[in-house]
Amino acid sequence: MSRVKVGVAGYGVIGQRLADGVALQGDMELVGVADVAPTLAVLSLKEKGMPYRLFCAVPDKKKGLEDAGIPVSGSMEELVDAVDVMLDATTGGVGIKNKELYKSMKTKAIFQGGEKNDVADVFFHGYANYEKGLGKDYLKLTSCNTTGLIRAVDSIDRAVGVDKVAITIIRRVADPGDTHRGLVDTLMVDKVPNHQCLDLMLIMPHIDATGFLVHTPVTHGHIINLVLTPKKDFSCEDVIEEFEKHPRIRVVSMDDGFNSNTAFFRYARDLGRPRGDMYEIGMWKECIGMSKKDIMFAIHIPQESVVIPETVDGIRAVMEMQTGRLDAVAMTNRYLGMS
Amino acid sequence: MSRVKVGVAGYGVIGQRLADGVALQGDMELVGVADVAPTLAVLSLKEKGMPYRLFCAVPDKKKGLEDAGIPVSGSMEELVDAVDVMLDATTGGVGIKNKELYKSMKTKAIFQGGEKNDVADVFFHGYANYEKGLGKDYLKLTSCNTTGLIRAVDSIDRAVGVDKVAITIIRRVADPGDTHRGLVDTLMVDKVPNHQCLDLMLIMPHIDATGFLVHTPVTHGHIINLVLTPKKDFSCEDVIEEFEKHPRIRVVSMDDGFNSNTAFFRYARDLGRPRGDMYEIGMWKECIGMSKKDIMFAIHIPQESVVIPETVDGIRAVMEMQTGRLDAVAMTNRYLGMS
Amino acid sequence: MSRVKVGVAGYGVIGQRLADGVALQGDMELVGVADVAPTLAVLSLKEKGMPYRLFCAVPDKKKGLEDAGIPVSGSMEELVDAVDVMLDATTGGVGIKNKELYKSMKTKAIFQGGEKNDVADVFFHGYANYEKGLGKDYLKLTSCNTTGLIRAVDSIDRAVGVDKVAITIIRRVADPGDTHRGLVDTLMVDKVPNHQCLDLMLIMPHIDATGFLVHTPVTHGHIINLVLTPKKDFSCEDVIEEFEKHPRIRVVSMDDGFNSNTAFFRYARDLGRPRGDMYEIGMWKECIGMSKKDIMFAIHIPQESVVIPETVDGIRAVMEMQTGRLDAVAMTNRYLGMS
Amino acid sequence: MSRVKVGVAGYGVIGQRLADGVALQGDMELVGVADVAPTLAVLSLKEKGMPYRLFCAVPDKKKGLEDAGIPVSGSMEELVDAVDVMLDATTGGVGIKNKELYKSMKTKAIFQGGEKNDVADVFFHGYANYEKGLGKDYLKLTSCNTTGLIRAVDSIDRAVGVDKVAITIIRRVADPGDTHRGLVDTLMVDKVPNHQCLDLMLIMPHIDATGFLVHTPVTHGHIINLVLTPKKDFSCEDVIEEFEKHPRIRVVSMDDGFNSNTAFFRYARDLGRPRGDMYEIGMWKECIGMSKKDIMFAIHIPQESVVIPETVDGIRAVMEMQTGRLDAVAMTNRYLGMS
Repeated sequence: MSRVKVGVAGYGVIGQRLADGVALQGDMELVGVADVAPTLAVLSLKEKGMPYRLFCAVPDKKKGLEDAGIPVSGSMEELVDAVDVMLDATTGGVGIKNKELYKSMKTKAIFQGGEKNDVADVFFHGYANYEKGLGKDYLKLTSCNTTGLIRAVDSIDRAVGVDKVAITIIRRVADPGDTHRGLVDTLMVDKVPNHQCLDLMLIMPHIDATGFLVHTPVTHGHIINLVLTPKKDFSCEDVIEEFEKHPRIRVVSMDDGFNSNTAFFRYARDLGRPRGDMYEIGMWKECIGMSKKDIMFAIHIPQESVVIPETVDGIRAVMEMQTGRLDAVAMTNRYLGMS
Repeated sequence: MSRVKVGVAGYGVIGQRLADGVALQGDMELVGVADVAPTLAVLSLKEKGMPYRLFCAVPDKKKGLEDAGIPVSGSMEELVDAVDVMLDATTGGVGIKNKELYKSMKTKAIFQGGEKNDVADVFFHGYANYEKGLGKDYLKLTSCNTTGLIRAVDSIDRAVGVDKVAITIIRRVADPGDTHRGLVDTLMVDKVPNHQCLDLMLIMPHIDATGFLVHTPVTHGHIINLVLTPKKDFSCEDVIEEFEKHPRIRVVSMDDGFNSNTAFFRYARDLGRPRGDMYEIGMWKECIGMSKKDIMFAIHIPQESVVIPETVDGIRAVMEMQTGRLDAVAMTNRYLGMS
Repeated sequence: MSRVKVGVAGYGVIGQRLADGVALQGDMELVGVADVAPTLAVLSLKEKGMPYRLFCAVPDKKKGLEDAGIPVSGSMEELVDAVDVMLDATTGGVGIKNKELYKSMKTKAIFQGGEKNDVADVFFHGYANYEKGLGKDYLKLTSCNTTGLIRAVDSIDRAVGVDKVAITIIRRVADPGDTHRGLVDTLMVDKVPNHQCLDLMLIMPHIDATGFLVHTPVTHGHIINLVLTPKKDFSCEDVIEEFEKHPRIRVVSMDDGFNSNTAFFRYARDLGRPRGDMYEIGMWKECIGMSKKDIMFAIHIPQESVVIPETVDGIRAVMEMQTGRLDAVAMTNRYLGMS
Repeated sequence: MSRVKVGVAGYGVIGQRLADGVALQGDMELVGVADVAPTLAVLSLKEKGMPYRLFCAVPDKKKGLEDAGIPVSGSMEELVDAVDVMLDATTGGVGIKNKELYKSMKTKAIFQGGEKNDVADVFFHGYANYEKGLGKDYLKLTSCNTTGLIRAVDSIDRAVGVDKVAITIIRRVADPGDTHRGLVDTLMVDKVPNHQCLDLMLIMPHIDATGFLVHTPVTHGHIINLVLTPKKDFSCEDVIEEFEKHPRIRVVSMDDGFNSNTAFFRYARDLGRPRGDMYEIGMWKECIGMSKKDIMFAIHIPQESVVIPETVDGIRAVMEMQTGRLDAVAMTNRYLGMS
């Protein structure tokens, strides 16, 4: 079978990482990425010698790119025409417009969390509802927090059943290098319930979920604390054991030095991971406790990279590369280096 | 009856506010405050014309104070001898040493949360266990987070009974102007359970409590999110109604502009509250939800000033100024301007 | 002579402080303030019992204010008609529209730094060019950084003459409680020259000025470091002596604990200054040095309150309450408590 | 000629990067690194399969390392004995103790900026005084800020001569992931002159330098603004041209998106640089201006990695691998990928 051809629209924080993630898949081919301006991300592509071909998403913008010395390989239409699946990582609201193009070219597409749910047929999570995406034309991925949250809840749900969960999201407010958003010396609150628990219930309607969210002035990952009611007795040790088996959850110890969200970033840098990224969510062994039969535990969400594996799973689903959930995620994990 | 004479040891962030709070009580007299160095707090006393008399806590240090132009009214011994109750707001670990002096002078004392529990006969909270402090010689107050947390939990517990509570503390890591501690772009985690839930169980042993704590790089107040299991059905509206009746809880609306921890500080500044302080904990009307029969809600803890009312309650208890809990707190509240 | 009648348009961070500053002037009367919505600032006015009358700046908005329980004393037209001078502290761009109303009512007006310079006849600074404002109809004040900067440079310029100055502005990026702007873990740079040095040259055209500006994630004041070339020899001691004589400059010592921008805020809170505000700029005795004959020194700019005195000076100028610069500023200083 | 054998003591933020930098040099061999505890850095070495051998710096600590699953290749003595040069990147104060060992083993050593100057024979900078290090036994490197600062000043000094410089250092207060130090909502000041300008004068005694330093709550690089008096006329364009020729200075444009210190970090991550590091200091084309004949410009200092090239230069000097300054730095640059 020939390799599945993939394109990426929007070469920003997520788009860059999607391109890298697809490029690592032995059974996929990254045809190119589309963008409109010589941003730092696009300039870095140039300085690296254009490892990925760049397509210009808006005809008017081609000159601007070329003036900045960026070789342009063609138009967005040409990219969409050349691929089996587009990964749309454009700014929220642009995806729904791009969808017209995808439709007209009969190209499948996977949208990121910033789009509205009705952009797609299925609201998708690789581990939680892979089968629902099989053969579909359009998927929308869960957002970064929801993707990580569902990984953890799904894992316990499959083990023992989950009745309800109440979450506290301690959210990073910007990405490293952002200057267009931020907070100073403030913890900003959102109304209850947050969208993440509503999204969780869309994917896992048998679970009751509510949640509170606080925006904090940091950039290196969200922390979510969960108070979860399992359907049967489940101990702290059971949770840890379950998570240690999960290829996309990294269980760490505070005693080893993992004492913060940024510790994961530091460790990933020291590991030599590209961009200092980590695909896994984190879980601190020492941050778990029982509230009678409820379990309380905290997870770390690396917001820049966490959705990459589940998006790649989405390609497998829409292209029916694997029909079974576990076969699909195992293939994604293998190519991304998560054993 | 003559006014109860009170002294304050340690004129720092808490000590200054204790002095101000006592000075407002019509049935108490602030005899003076003790410190050892011409800190900014002590220099501000001088610039204001010494509204409170300053006593030197360590004989050697008198010259340093006088060289800085600070009039010294006497030694710590003289202060302790002249008062009925000392409020000890010295750095953690100093209080236990000061206790020897208090004992030798037969002066009662109330210690702040930084000291170890065994410094005192009773671990005290004005609303939750006032009666236990009656006539005692030594009390230790709950720390800032625990004081605010217990206010909220006690209020529901008295209304309907509380079975268990799981809390997430999003903690400010420094006070405004601190340069000796801080965090940058990091959410630091503590091991579960945190001391605040253990302390809550010491004061309210009939409740099961656990908790997770994250340190965040902000200065204007902690936020605690609670998932609380009441003993009988209790709705969001019931919680709001209960809190609106509580003189030390301020229920606010995000729609009015209270969208952060710092909004409380800003509002208190605009109200003209001295130092921009607020004695009340805050509760956002829109940050409450149900997790089946459990209630989830979030409170704001103004760390610099929250313990002042309960400490003043402590004076009332050890001096048996009021024998009933509600009479005592009502008197404190009236003098502090909380209706 | 009857007291000069003053109104304030825009009851935000600056407007509130202008109202307070005018209310303190024995020879002025604050007739009222105008705003459009029940913001936290307006709600605090209500909770304080409406010490200032509120006028509704936009007819449509009156109901919204009244629904929030805010008594409305009349329309903006009524306020403008009732006063001699309006202080316009509305958001940048609104003042130029309000000017039409001021003109039609023949009411003088003083605009804040957010407006474009051509909104007014004179670009004004109380100490540097008071005389230019005498009897004028419209003034525009310098912005917060420029106001403080000119205070310092003007002081040396009058003493010894200033040839040129190169400045580094380390700017706070938001005010306490702001959630609509901010930065996280980033020092954002502006192009050279910054507007503050250009503005300085508009007020003091005989001085050559350039400057670099960095936005930093803090809220309690800007720091400006100046490298200044005096026209004659001038030592560090000379600068300190000059500044110690200046009623609007507070010379402090790091050895006393003034080791940061926020130390000024903390000290002002401890002093009992309303809102923890300080009208004076600060200067650290230990942060001055010579670069051969150039002087390098750093000043602190309390962004929320620094422009209040110079704006009040502006009222004195347009109303010709004092014809001499030193008489005018002395009167402002006396009423604001700066000796 | 056989490759020069190098060891690194202290596998922390700097030590890791020194090891990586040496490993890239074709004419050097990294024999191993020494540390004492299974820190995250050491654990990352294990997860990567021990690309560098680890030696235990304190005999007692070997068990702790082995218990954490870290293979220990020997003692610090064995490492020191096996190498020609040790790079000492231990915590300040430890290097002077290690020096005894280096002496006893007749092994040359290069100390980082945290040590006192008298630890070494020569205070060293690869570009500014390479020749002074030739054949010496002990060098001390300039600290991160000073290293970058001297790169820039030396470049202009060699072109046109520098008479004096006044600098403003806007310093990052912690590294990403640090939890042992930090600041919140505060700009902390240091006394003038800062050590960096004193250090500059030690290396370049013919230049008069003074400086002011502000600590800011960020982690991704320092910014230094210089007001520099050249000995002859030198324009902004001249400076830019000079810097564009310098392999260790990267001239960037704000119009390309380089609008902050963190932009460099983001770009380096996107470039695929290990750990998101950059060896070059940065200079913004738009952040330069003239103050009459003085030049004002700003540079960016990537604190974690900036000293690596000059330290490698130090190895070349003490081992007399190249006798000429330009030959040496060119070799270092080539192996580090800076053309």
